[in-house]
Amino acid sequence: MIKNYKMILSYDGTPYDGWQKQGNTPNTIQAKLERILSEVSKNLNASQGEKQGIELHGSGRTDAGTHALGQVANFHMNFEGEISALQKEIEKHLPETIALLSLEEVGERFHSRLSAKRKKYTYTIWTSSQSPVFERKYVFWCKEALNLELMQEGAKYFLGKHDFKSFCANQKMKKSTIREIYDISFVISEDKIEITFEGNGFLYQMVRIMVGTLIEIGEGKKNVSDIEEILNARSREQAGFTAPAKGLCLKEVFYD
Amino acid sequence: MIKNYKMILSYDGTPYDGWQKQGNTPNTIQAKLERILSEVSKNLNASQGEKQGIELHGSGRTDAGTHALGQVANFHMNFEGEISALQKEIEKHLPETIALLSLEEVGERFHSRLSAKRKKYTYTIWTSSQSPVFERKYVFWCKEALNLELMQEGAKYFLGKHDFKSFCANQKMKKSTIREIYDISFVISEDKIEITFEGNGFLYQMVRIMVGTLIEIGEGKKNVSDIEEILNARSREQAGFTAPAKGLCLKEVFYD
Repeated sequence: MIKNYKMILSYDGTPYDGWQKQGNTPNTIQAKLERILSEVSKNLNASQGEKQGIELHGSGRTDAGTHALGQVANFHMNFEGEISALQKEIEKHLPETIALLSLEEVGERFHSRLSAKRKKYTYTIWTSSQSPVFERKYVFWCKEALNLELMQEGAKYFLGKHDFKSFCANQKMKKSTIREIYDISFVISEDKIEITFEGNGFLYQMVRIMVGTLIEIGEGKKNVSDIEEILNARSREQAGFTAPAKGLCLKEVFYD
Repeated sequence: MIKNYKMILSYDGTPYDGWQKQGNTPNTIQAKLERILSEVSKNLNASQGEKQGIELHGSGRTDAGTHALGQVANFHMNFEGEISALQKEIEKHLPETIALLSLEEVGERFHSRLSAKRKKYTYTIWTSSQSPVFERKYVFWCKEALNLELMQEGAKYFLGKHDFKSFCANQKMKKSTIREIYDISFVISEDKIEITFEGNGFLYQMVRIMVGTLIEIGEGKKNVSDIEEILNARSREQAGFTAPAKGLCLKEVFYD
């Protein structure tokens, strides 16, 4: 019987060309997982001569170099046994850069992207003067001094429902660019700042552009109150730089 | 004026063939740093036509793949300016896998290895059933269940002064194989066990063999009381396996 399965995945995005499978980029996380799932399905259904490839739907794409601690994806597979056996079979094929945190059967109508209600991303800025030897692939090292109070002040302007077109890397986006941000929190330690964004959805590179803008505020290159003007401008050019992909991690995707 | 400088270094050992420069292994941390220091010295002393290479003395070698948070090394260099300028100049040349945590001028008699009084190493064993996606190069993933109480019990037999010949990978060692271990502590969290060893010195691969032996005790393959017999045997074959290099990190070197 064909069932719908939901996976929660963790991955180190460093060696991949992002999540999403695209024409000539076989080195994406989605493509890698689809090859594994198709292989597993073929092995488990050998007697039925199963040959069809498995399609995997992610909750959203992560950029090349961006990481995940809780990406969600779903797929349909013909499988009769215990789910723990299926999980073990998949895990056997996973590279050390991808972990399957959980696997469960879900209702037919569940779709990782369409059913998602909220998402949580964390961006890590390394602030120590000492180079992040062990964390270097998971943080953005900002060597300028940052005024954290101004950054926290600035972040408040993002809260709530806004048109985030100025914070979208795809300026030809035809669908709505309105999103709602529920919470932005800062965890500040000796070596780094972790900024967590929770919202009903995020546009292409939106978190990275918001972080770049907050960094420019922290460096004194932009004012806190500029954010309101940038939002109103609805133009990517008004916002700050796009903070590097490697500092970003998809933490959690929430469903009803 | 030629002065003696002490560096404290942190490095990710993953891409290197260990610390120690050897005939045909240009890819060691020592060789890399000597090239950088020689270049810095040449630039700073250009007017004097300085051409001599700089020799760097580490507190001890770390194996290929082993990391450091506090390796100590010293070198002699002709330099007249502020030490902070020298530190900045060196840092400019460092790859992202090596950080210079501190640089200070020390007395002529200071030698990183010969003056060292105590050393601290930490070995990290990953115990979660979920793969260590982000820590994979810094831990050894032990998939068997471990009895931690037995491991802690066993570790006590290593404390004090013993002949550690059974825990030395170089069985042709001509110098004394007697070492004293002052402390072994366990930090146990949900995903991992960190075992920290402090002693007056450690033989070649001694920490890794002690850890391998403790793991075999934790897995029930060896008994706690075997350690006493292994020490008495003075034979590498009696001890456990050599735990992988990547789980090991040189934490600190102590001087008077």
